[in-house]
Amino acid sequence: MADVAARFAEVVGEHNLLSGAQVGEDYASDESLTCEPRKPAYVAKPATADEVAALLTAAAEHGVPVTARGSGTGLSGAARPREDGLLISFERMNAVLEVDVDNQVAVVQPGVTLAELDEKTAAAGLAYTVYPGELSASVGGNVSTNAGGMRAVKYGVTRHNVLGLQAVLPTGEILRTGGKTSKISTGYDLTQLIIGSEGTLALVTEVIVKLYPRLAHGATLLAPFGDLDQVMGAVPKIIASGLTPNILEYIDNLTMAAISYNEKLELGVPEEIKNATQAYLVVGLENRDGDRLDGDVERAGELLGELGATDVYVLDGGSARKLIEAREKAFWSAKAAGADDVIDVVVPRSEMPAFLARVRELATAAEGGALGCGHAGDGNVHMGIFCKDPERRRKLLHDIFAAGMAVGGAISGEHGIGQSRKEHYAELEDPAKLALLRRIKQAFDPQGILNPGTLFD
Amino acid sequence: MADVAARFAEVVGEHNLLSGAQVGEDYASDESLTCEPRKPAYVAKPATADEVAALLTAAAEHGVPVTARGSGTGLSGAARPREDGLLISFERMNAVLEVDVDNQVAVVQPGVTLAELDEKTAAAGLAYTVYPGELSASVGGNVSTNAGGMRAVKYGVTRHNVLGLQAVLPTGEILRTGGKTSKISTGYDLTQLIIGSEGTLALVTEVIVKLYPRLAHGATLLAPFGDLDQVMGAVPKIIASGLTPNILEYIDNLTMAAISYNEKLELGVPEEIKNATQAYLVVGLENRDGDRLDGDVERAGELLGELGATDVYVLDGGSARKLIEAREKAFWSAKAAGADDVIDVVVPRSEMPAFLARVRELATAAEGGALGCGHAGDGNVHMGIFCKDPERRRKLLHDIFAAGMAVGGAISGEHGIGQSRKEHYAELEDPAKLALLRRIKQAFDPQGILNPGTLFD
Ligand SMILES: Cc1cc2nc3c(=O)[nH]c(=O)nc-3n(C[C@H](O)[C@H](O)[C@H](O)COP(=O)(O)OP(=O)(O)OC[C@H]3O[C@@H](n4cnc5c(N)ncnc54)[C@H](O)[C@@H]3O)c2cc1C
Ligand SMILES: Cc1cc2nc3c(=O)[nH]c(=O)nc-3n(C[C@H](O)[C@H](O)[C@H](O)COP(=O)(O)OP(=O)(O)OC[C@H]3O[C@@H](n4cnc5c(N)ncnc54)[C@H](O)[C@@H]3O)c2cc1C
Repeated sequence: MADVAARFAEVVGEHNLLSGAQVGEDYASDESLTCEPRKPAYVAKPATADEVAALLTAAAEHGVPVTARGSGTGLSGAARPREDGLLISFERMNAVLEVDVDNQVAVVQPGVTLAELDEKTAAAGLAYTVYPGELSASVGGNVSTNAGGMRAVKYGVTRHNVLGLQAVLPTGEILRTGGKTSKISTGYDLTQLIIGSEGTLALVTEVIVKLYPRLAHGATLLAPFGDLDQVMGAVPKIIASGLTPNILEYIDNLTMAAISYNEKLELGVPEEIKNATQAYLVVGLENRDGDRLDGDVERAGELLGELGATDVYVLDGGSARKLIEAREKAFWSAKAAGADDVIDVVVPRSEMPAFLARVRELATAAEGGALGCGHAGDGNVHMGIFCKDPERRRKLLHDIFAAGMAVGGAISGEHGIGQSRKEHYAELEDPAKLALLRRIKQAFDPQGILNPGTLFD
Repeated sequence: MADVAARFAEVVGEHNLLSGAQVGEDYASDESLTCEPRKPAYVAKPATADEVAALLTAAAEHGVPVTARGSGTGLSGAARPREDGLLISFERMNAVLEVDVDNQVAVVQPGVTLAELDEKTAAAGLAYTVYPGELSASVGGNVSTNAGGMRAVKYGVTRHNVLGLQAVLPTGEILRTGGKTSKISTGYDLTQLIIGSEGTLALVTEVIVKLYPRLAHGATLLAPFGDLDQVMGAVPKIIASGLTPNILEYIDNLTMAAISYNEKLELGVPEEIKNATQAYLVVGLENRDGDRLDGDVERAGELLGELGATDVYVLDGGSARKLIEAREKAFWSAKAAGADDVIDVVVPRSEMPAFLARVRELATAAEGGALGCGHAGDGNVHMGIFCKDPERRRKLLHDIFAAGMAVGGAISGEHGIGQSRKEHYAELEDPAKLALLRRIKQAFDPQGILNPGTLFD
């Protein structure tokens, strides 16, 4: 053991290797509500891909399991290390290496936070359009979870916005995949295979992300609906309108009440309308041209009225920002309200009303509750699950996931399987598919040292 | 041998199995200019995924290599069967199973042609936005080559527009991947891994494609430039403008002359401008609103002028359609002109001027020629290579591919490696990456029966 610690220290330098009591609580978990923290034996903070490769080589030789960590904001326990393991923290590999205006890409190290990338790209009039709710998240973590967020309805998720990677295999080999080009048909797409693999196939040491022109004009509309089904029914119509919203969220009335209270949100919705509201739709629009935006806002307002909104509020800049921020913090509200778990099932848009109705039934039967909001445009439902009894909760989650899959959906739209969902995943996924995933895992990681216990056992 | 033929016939029915002299020339190759036709021992035409699975099981038992075939319009020889092999032709699995308006997806069998899908989606006001130059191509072939085309600059390539698959493993297992949702973070993305795998990992028996609202208004601008570098320099500026062109092509002067002559194209460009032109830029714009389109056309015209176009022609509908069709047929023009090969290297947009200059040098040094056009917005250069001597041509191609890779590009942006590029691919690709691809291949196809000789040997 001393032996392997010496090897790790040799690679990253003494002061970049922590072990024993030096390892802080922070490294023991991510933000998952259900995975008990677990401190790793070692934390190493490499500065280069070569150091990552050397760490992996040493770990492989000594059979030490390795978990990668970005900012630890994940919600599935995927960054929770093993007690006997090495946690590789990418906090020092946090440089934006290049913002390339001509090719509209940025080249970044994995530890760069989204907040920092947003600042650097803004300076060039560009934007990396993947905005999960937590901007302290790292690009490396985003890649590994295939993070989404509110803008995915227009711009797609991480998968659609990453063009290339540098990645280190558990065997210590350093590969480059993809590049600064938007398309490639030259061999199997390793970029796409590594995206969403939750640190189980390779460690990401550089990322080429796609950028878009940052549009100058934006507006946010808030539309209360008396009926949840109506909200859901409105979503496909808004998508079909060609208005191309960059935000299309639903927020149920209790969640709206909670985030409004927590964030001191005052949006000007009269009490009597609030009381008659089952859910809200938030529609974001943007344009490079102010007049066109105004036209779109008008059209969207009319459309929302036709689709059954009891009223439509065009929020001023300050209120809009506050609402979006409050929505981003819905997770903390749910946590503060005592939610026992948070899920993000994805279903086809058209199945949302039936799915939500089924979830309510299941929650009621389990003597629990399920409340939330979600990326409605993507059919991605984020819900706080309230059910104290672990066994009943386990069954409730199983039934909710099964209900989502039964209508053509999946357990997770953006948070991943991690350690908190793997039991359900093993129970519900097609065994032939799981066997294939394991063979792919084997192709990357024959010794099984990368993030064991995440995704599957 | 009689044995296995009987098994195949049992699966698909006598009249859907061809062998010996019954096998027509058509099944012997795709449209690659360099792969000699090679008739397969058997052609089977299954009607269902179960039949495909049964064929694969029988083939695996008898060690018979299997090649899939869509419409045979591929340009890399990837659908060329083995002489001792079974060709599975998807021509009978050609139904559009569903156009789902609420979820904006279509569910199709792999043998559906793009022309037919275009017709069926148009009826619903939607579009499948992947338009490679040849609309007789099948969706299954598109998936397997990760086809692109002119609209990719706005809508992305096949990879960005396929949400789910039904696929049969060489072991006979039938899997479903993805679904009618735009995002999933639930296990490795098998959809993306199968896309672009050129029939070497699994056979695709159903495809869920993403649809977009079909925009009512479109316009096409033609801009001649005196200088090729200027054309290339203009491309990033047009992308940065936020005009979001749905077509952004360059056509060099000789290619324009050839396609104009072959397709009797008369675009109203005066002789003296033609003579002073090194290359043309074609810019397509579209909008759901006619007035906005007019505004964009005006802005684009000004911009092209500022960027050095000697003139700008806004083509009327008929001329525009003819130009686009002629551009789509550039391959046939190159073939008719005696091109010895056709390549589609992709490089970062900003590298196009340097790359094209290098290709000219290399071609001249090889006493050959390289002419063409390309998806400029994507950095995807399509070129006819003229060089009769096979050894010199081999070296020329090697050097061109190496030059593309040296500036961060890849051998193929959309046609694939197939059988015609695999030697170069083996020489130029990182051996560690190739070894990993082989291990992935092994994870899907332990016996190696799927399309052996394509991608790698
Ligand atoms: C308030 C809040 C709101 C959120 N909203 C959203 C949302 O809207 N959409 C959404 O998708 N997510 C959301 N999340 C979840 C989270 O922010 C994302 O999953 C994010 O991508 C995690 O990034 P991270 O850097 O914190 O990763 P971590 O939690 O550190 O790690 C996540 C996974 O990535 C792996 N990993 C990290 N770095 C690397 C690397 N360099 N190489 C290989 N593997 C690596 C880890 O091993 C782990 O498997 C939210 C979280 C919070 C707390
Ligand atoms: C004039 C012309 C213009 C073209 N322009 C473009 C262009 O702009 N962009 C572009 O990308 N391409 C272009 N192409 C190339 C070609 O049209 C595409 O590659 C197309 O995707 C091939 O489809 P196909 O059905 O003909 O496939 P095929 O040639 O039959 O097969 C292609 C590959 O797919 C595999 N395959 C086919 N069906 C299946 C299945 N069901 N399951 C698994 N594997 C399968 C085959 O084994 C083979 O590996 C052009 C071709 C021509 C002739």
